[in-house]
Amino acid sequence: MGDALVHKEHLLVVFFQPISPQLLGIIQSKFPQAEVSTLSLPRGETIPSEYAREATLLVTFTNLPNPEDAQNLKIIHFLSAGLDHSLHHPIIRETSIPVTTSSGVHGPPIAEWTVMNWLVASRKYNFTYENQKKHNWTGVNEYVQDIHDNVGKKVGILGYGSIGRQIGRVASALGAKVYAYTASPRSTPSSRIDNGFIVPGTGDKDGSIPVSWHHGTDKASLHEFLSLGLDHLVISLPLTPETTKFLGAEEFALLSARATPGHPKPYLTNISRGKVIDQDALIQALKAGSLGGAALDVTDPEPLPEDHPLWDMPNVQISPH
Amino acid sequence: MGDALVHKEHLLVVFFQPISPQLLGIIQSKFPQAEVSTLSLPRGETIPSEYAREATLLVTFTNLPNPEDAQNLKIIHFLSAGLDHSLHHPIIRETSIPVTTSSGVHGPPIAEWTVMNWLVASRKYNFTYENQKKHNWTGVNEYVQDIHDNVGKKVGILGYGSIGRQIGRVASALGAKVYAYTASPRSTPSSRIDNGFIVPGTGDKDGSIPVSWHHGTDKASLHEFLSLGLDHLVISLPLTPETTKFLGAEEFALLSARATPGHPKPYLTNISRGKVIDQDALIQALKAGSLGGAALDVTDPEPLPEDHPLWDMPNVQISPH
Repeated sequence: MGDALVHKEHLLVVFFQPISPQLLGIIQSKFPQAEVSTLSLPRGETIPSEYAREATLLVTFTNLPNPEDAQNLKIIHFLSAGLDHSLHHPIIRETSIPVTTSSGVHGPPIAEWTVMNWLVASRKYNFTYENQKKHNWTGVNEYVQDIHDNVGKKVGILGYGSIGRQIGRVASALGAKVYAYTASPRSTPSSRIDNGFIVPGTGDKDGSIPVSWHHGTDKASLHEFLSLGLDHLVISLPLTPETTKFLGAEEFALLSARATPGHPKPYLTNISRGKVIDQDALIQALKAGSLGGAALDVTDPEPLPEDHPLWDMPNVQISPH
Repeated sequence: MGDALVHKEHLLVVFFQPISPQLLGIIQSKFPQAEVSTLSLPRGETIPSEYAREATLLVTFTNLPNPEDAQNLKIIHFLSAGLDHSLHHPIIRETSIPVTTSSGVHGPPIAEWTVMNWLVASRKYNFTYENQKKHNWTGVNEYVQDIHDNVGKKVGILGYGSIGRQIGRVASALGAKVYAYTASPRSTPSSRIDNGFIVPGTGDKDGSIPVSWHHGTDKASLHEFLSLGLDHLVISLPLTPETTKFLGAEEFALLSARATPGHPKPYLTNISRGKVIDQDALIQALKAGSLGGAALDVTDPEPLPEDHPLWDMPNVQISPH
């Protein structure tokens, strides 16, 4: 019996907020043989010894144990796609515990967030929501005016990774045309394949959805892409020194100038990092009407200060990263 | 010159609200050879003689001319999918002027409205919208809790016509599984084809999207369908004597009882007619939590009275048909 207890897996899930009993139940049902415990810790804080020492399997976002507390640990699974925040941690550098990440899982939720924002903006959801609060049916004439659908719209995706591909998949289902942009050239079919984990039934494994592929890390290549007459620009790039303020006044002007006449002005979606765009230039472009609107899951800085002008812009939708 | 004037086409567009100059420009650009004029009339009102007599091409929603004013008219195109509202009009009964409808064009906008409402509900959009109004970033912990995506969700579509098919297409792109329900059996591949007009790049021409097809006009068939463990039920049925109050307390209870454990309770979308559901039973099911929410583009009656309890239900999203 002692042996049985020693060999029972102990799954420890650490997150920055409490795990709901419902979610705990789902996790337990996936690991019926294991003991499952959860722990809520502030981001980056070390997992206390008494929890770490019992765990054989660790699922975590940013919290890690000290190496001396990891004697039973067989695997560390990160809830994040990247490991940049933890690469220098002693448990990664000094032990050989296998590490897995959640790279690939963020396509569906972030694509849903993106498309939700497009539709909320283009179909005037806020207008009907406010009318519902007022018990007001009669806005229908005002409501119908200037609603556009996505059929034939041109969606440019800067950074065609697992998230960009799922956005492409949904955009294509809506009848839109997808234009992919990557740092390196993808001129052969094999170079267009997504070799990472793909949530079944989603994404664009073969890279067959885009009507055309574009690439480059220089401004000239970017400007060529922004001149395609895009209705949507989705920014899904990693933040690097090269991509810092990659899009500014000049890029927004170009995007606006090449927009299809009769269509609304281009809509910008940023799911990357706030610093990828020149945020002051974005505000100017929105105020001037050269961009039609923006959905921002990221800002610069975060949290966005309470007195920041972005909050009150009517054509901007902000969510807290 | 007189002949040239007589032969120039004159396109008259009649709608219940003014056509914007932007939209007029788009119409004019599609018919560069024709004179285009627009007219705004209350629904159902007769087109005055002085307008009707000049028109060679008429595009209309509900307004028609008297037959004696239609001497130059070559075609009548309806902006609606059906003609039930106009079948008894003398211009339809007593003349041989060709008539076309817009059947098939409503898939994209109504599918967008449907999916927008799903995502607004499941991704707590109202919460971020209200937080943005308060300049409040800090709700992120509360925000992340209980957000679900559509991967693996079961979407049942009652009435798999042009609108249902486009909803199916987008649902499938989101990673959901689609279950089709039709009145008559569709057991052969050819019976599943959509032979109507399809907006290019949308819909489900071959009927290949559903994981299974179901049919029937009786309660037993409906109940079998509602027992599939659906996460979404979309009602896209025509209103007939048979479909009046087709869904009531018994159906909502069944839908709820067979929902997948650990998932949110089923979400109902009604894009058909308000009378297809027993609205009081719907309110009870929502209050009791046996349904997770509802998106209603149609109600009974319309407009919904100002003091109606539906307006204030937190999990109901209403738009004015």
